[in-house]
Amino acid sequence: MPPTNRQVLLASRPTGEPSEANFRIVEAPLPEPGDGQVLVRHHYLSLDPYMRGRMNEGKSYAAAQPLDAVMLGGTVGEVVASRSPALAVGDHVVGMGGWQLYSVATPARGEVRKLDTSRVPLSAYLGPVGMPGVTAWYGLTKIIAPKPGETVVVSAASGAVGGVVGQLAKRRGARAVGIAGGPDKCRHVVEELGFDACVDYKAHPNVDALAAALREACPGGIDGDFENVGGVVLDAVLRRANAFARVALCGMIAGYNGAPIPLAAPQLLLINRMKVEGFIISEHMGEWPAALAELGELVARGELRYHETIADGLDAAPAAFLGMLRGAHLGKQLVRLI
Amino acid sequence: MPPTNRQVLLASRPTGEPSEANFRIVEAPLPEPGDGQVLVRHHYLSLDPYMRGRMNEGKSYAAAQPLDAVMLGGTVGEVVASRSPALAVGDHVVGMGGWQLYSVATPARGEVRKLDTSRVPLSAYLGPVGMPGVTAWYGLTKIIAPKPGETVVVSAASGAVGGVVGQLAKRRGARAVGIAGGPDKCRHVVEELGFDACVDYKAHPNVDALAAALREACPGGIDGDFENVGGVVLDAVLRRANAFARVALCGMIAGYNGAPIPLAAPQLLLINRMKVEGFIISEHMGEWPAALAELGELVARGELRYHETIADGLDAAPAAFLGMLRGAHLGKQLVRLI
Repeated sequence: MPPTNRQVLLASRPTGEPSEANFRIVEAPLPEPGDGQVLVRHHYLSLDPYMRGRMNEGKSYAAAQPLDAVMLGGTVGEVVASRSPALAVGDHVVGMGGWQLYSVATPARGEVRKLDTSRVPLSAYLGPVGMPGVTAWYGLTKIIAPKPGETVVVSAASGAVGGVVGQLAKRRGARAVGIAGGPDKCRHVVEELGFDACVDYKAHPNVDALAAALREACPGGIDGDFENVGGVVLDAVLRRANAFARVALCGMIAGYNGAPIPLAAPQLLLINRMKVEGFIISEHMGEWPAALAELGELVARGELRYHETIADGLDAAPAAFLGMLRGAHLGKQLVRLI
Repeated sequence: MPPTNRQVLLASRPTGEPSEANFRIVEAPLPEPGDGQVLVRHHYLSLDPYMRGRMNEGKSYAAAQPLDAVMLGGTVGEVVASRSPALAVGDHVVGMGGWQLYSVATPARGEVRKLDTSRVPLSAYLGPVGMPGVTAWYGLTKIIAPKPGETVVVSAASGAVGGVVGQLAKRRGARAVGIAGGPDKCRHVVEELGFDACVDYKAHPNVDALAAALREACPGGIDGDFENVGGVVLDAVLRRANAFARVALCGMIAGYNGAPIPLAAPQLLLINRMKVEGFIISEHMGEWPAALAELGELVARGELRYHETIADGLDAAPAAFLGMLRGAHLGKQLVRLI
């Protein structure tokens, strides 16, 4: 029996918190590569918070995910059939293959990029040497641009992006302080990733308590904030911000299910002459080569630590995704497909 | 009888809205210029919204105004006694003379700057060719940096800063849309200052109504916002912001008396990949010469329109200041002292 494809589709848009009922898993014929195309068998699927935004209809920074179509997502895999001179069977590639076992791609259009797995593990190209790593690199180096001795705070510090932010900040001579949910994650952030401190937001469930904990973790105040969460977390960070502090606004997961997340005191942005900049990394492709060069070298040398949480099999993808949105994972959430 | 000085002191800090009881007017001996100093007789005193912030204790972008001290403020006047080689009796100068009839200043320390009143009226150096003008110039050209065809919105558009913002935006090929309180101010902004449109926030007293009015006034959306007000006004502007819009955060007068001014939907900053930057113009002294050169030339040629609301006599300063905070003025609020 020839292999068939298997896909996760978006079946319906969530109202509030999404559930497995929003997804549908189907069998599909193996796609045929056309002229100039390759067939890729996916080894790992990347699960990322931005996908939650795409499940909604309406205005977001990413276009809405179409209903009854394969969920969009980053993948790494190997070429199993090639009608392109650019890639041979057996080559490893990264692309946006989606939540499925196989995809076809056109190398000449940049839909897949060949990977060197001799020094960097394949899965790392979905994490620290992929979109999450470049996101961290861009927000830290291009928006926050920390000076030695400054303090950089990152929320969701135990996640795929946050972990890289803090380590890059440390390498640039800054104090790195994480915010994460629960003692285990905070221990990981400090002991495994080498942050200077980590504040457990679950132990400080209101803005006053969280601001007090940040005061202790950041005795010199906060000069840079890499924001992945928003809501009370951002309110507390702003209370401790120094003059001329910079906020790289990368995500506001506190509001992904539709809860209002007002900013309590925007006047602090003026009082402290702050800069806030929202960004989406796919709009800064020109920065990827420099970012990937630094990140790849650091991972190859073992100087950039990262953790993976791996779910097995395509059918596990929806539950793993929902768990990630609730913070059940540590580091990069992946689905292993072979 | 030799002339004496007369001063307005801060008598007490306001709780909520300030009143005349927060000020005290006193007579004082005429100050004596020391070696290297000049005695300046003030012709005009500048009243500015930032002074409200300084009346409070605690953290603001400006240091608190000391109690029982002369209210700080910009002044233009003439040298009436000189012990400095840099200035002669009769020279016109601008400085921070404060709410009083006379002050001493040291030219070598940059405390006063000599003015050319042959092409620009003396009072304009407190308005379009002074701090308000430079504030407008900096926020517009350095933060918003409009491209031809873009739309720039400015709140408090009929004020000393806002009026300049819109005219500079027009000169750079942008569409200029004001937000102001009441039909008379809006008419002034469009007919006298040449804005393309002006939205009356008093006629649209909630965020839905104001956003709808902005949609009509800004059919192409909003690319730049020069924010002087905050609160509902900023919420409405964000609803109509385009991707990559820039906010120059100059003032948030909606919150000056202590009312909370939460930002309803900060996620719009991320969705639209916006940039928000707070600034205070005294921290960008390097930009003043270029700004003043452009502004002075435009005023001299009659190509930059401005309006002055003038109160007469030092004793009228507190009431004029309180009126300005309530929006009773049009353009630049001055106190004429001679």
